[in-house]
Amino acid sequence: MTSVTIIGTGNMANAIGGVLAKGGASVGYVSREEAGTAPVTGDVVVLAVPYPALAGLAEAYRDQLAGKVVVDITNPLDFSTFDSLVVPAGSSAAAELQAALPGARVVKAFNTTFAATLASGQVGANTTTVLVAGDHADAKATLVEAVKAGGLQAIDAGSLARAHELEALGFLQLTLAAGEKISWTGGFAVVS
Amino acid sequence: MTSVTIIGTGNMANAIGGVLAKGGASVGYVSREEAGTAPVTGDVVVLAVPYPALAGLAEAYRDQLAGKVVVDITNPLDFSTFDSLVVPAGSSAAAELQAALPGARVVKAFNTTFAATLASGQVGANTTTVLVAGDHADAKATLVEAVKAGGLQAIDAGSLARAHELEALGFLQLTLAAGEKISWTGGFAVVS
Repeated sequence: MTSVTIIGTGNMANAIGGVLAKGGASVGYVSREEAGTAPVTGDVVVLAVPYPALAGLAEAYRDQLAGKVVVDITNPLDFSTFDSLVVPAGSSAAAELQAALPGARVVKAFNTTFAATLASGQVGANTTTVLVAGDHADAKATLVEAVKAGGLQAIDAGSLARAHELEALGFLQLTLAAGEKISWTGGFAVVS
Repeated sequence: MTSVTIIGTGNMANAIGGVLAKGGASVGYVSREEAGTAPVTGDVVVLAVPYPALAGLAEAYRDQLAGKVVVDITNPLDFSTFDSLVVPAGSSAAAELQAALPGARVVKAFNTTFAATLASGQVGANTTTVLVAGDHADAKATLVEAVKAGGLQAIDAGSLARAHELEALGFLQLTLAAGEKISWTGGFAVVS
């Protein structure tokens, strides 16, 4: 059984935890208030926090996260303008996190799926698909299987370099929803 | 009636021309062999060519394209590696084209929809959606209306800066299809 620790208790944390628990994983939560002091015991650790919180978590948990599958779900938007990302051009939050946690196996996932589509399992008439990128094939396979066990689709979208494109997709989707071009229950569906 | 000139006669050229003609536009084609010498007469000019051909077309048609709606559909991949784009990080082919054609009203569109989904009007069970970005609201509105008249959905996805994200989306979609994670008749559907 996959053991998962989710740091964060917001909409995304609960939606992701719900999917993984439905798939049979053992899921525990660490609130952001406890983060940094509470131990993370899962083999898979989902950092379900906003981008600005990643650096502090990486510093606090660097030793404990070594060897673990660490899931970055963030969309590093400049929320004051909704017109750019705050990571360097061509880079990604996930690449930064992997650099900060060299012993961890970082995967990017869940940043292209709104919480409502994880909870419902549907984007319109389509099964919600989680896109997963990372440089560790076994880590991606663990997450892909855990998501599929929870009833969603999941696709290995390539190396951690593809996190740039996943974050571009997440950014675009957020701007479309904020601009009321799509709803927060819709967005990009993946049709295989 | 919107008059459209499409430069190119490949799968994308034909699929785009089919949608716009279905919507009532007057559509003419210029083959790549004729390009540079044949006049472009449409109010909307679709450059349905691979990215490396854009610079030459911009130089050949700079004067004729002034004032026109010029549609860039390219995905500027490094096709030798399928692992990066050939435009500078953070930029886009569309931004380069607008810089090369300062008198034109450049819009990015059709780079996130495979030819088959334009021809069929469907991405799986979803109506195909064309995402349109540009800095000229009237140019975007012209294209959005022409696409909708042809039976597809179309969304104004923001300023020309968003062409970076649309090209990231197109790149990701191409890598997923080339890697057989999705089919060339599927891809990203937009659920509003």
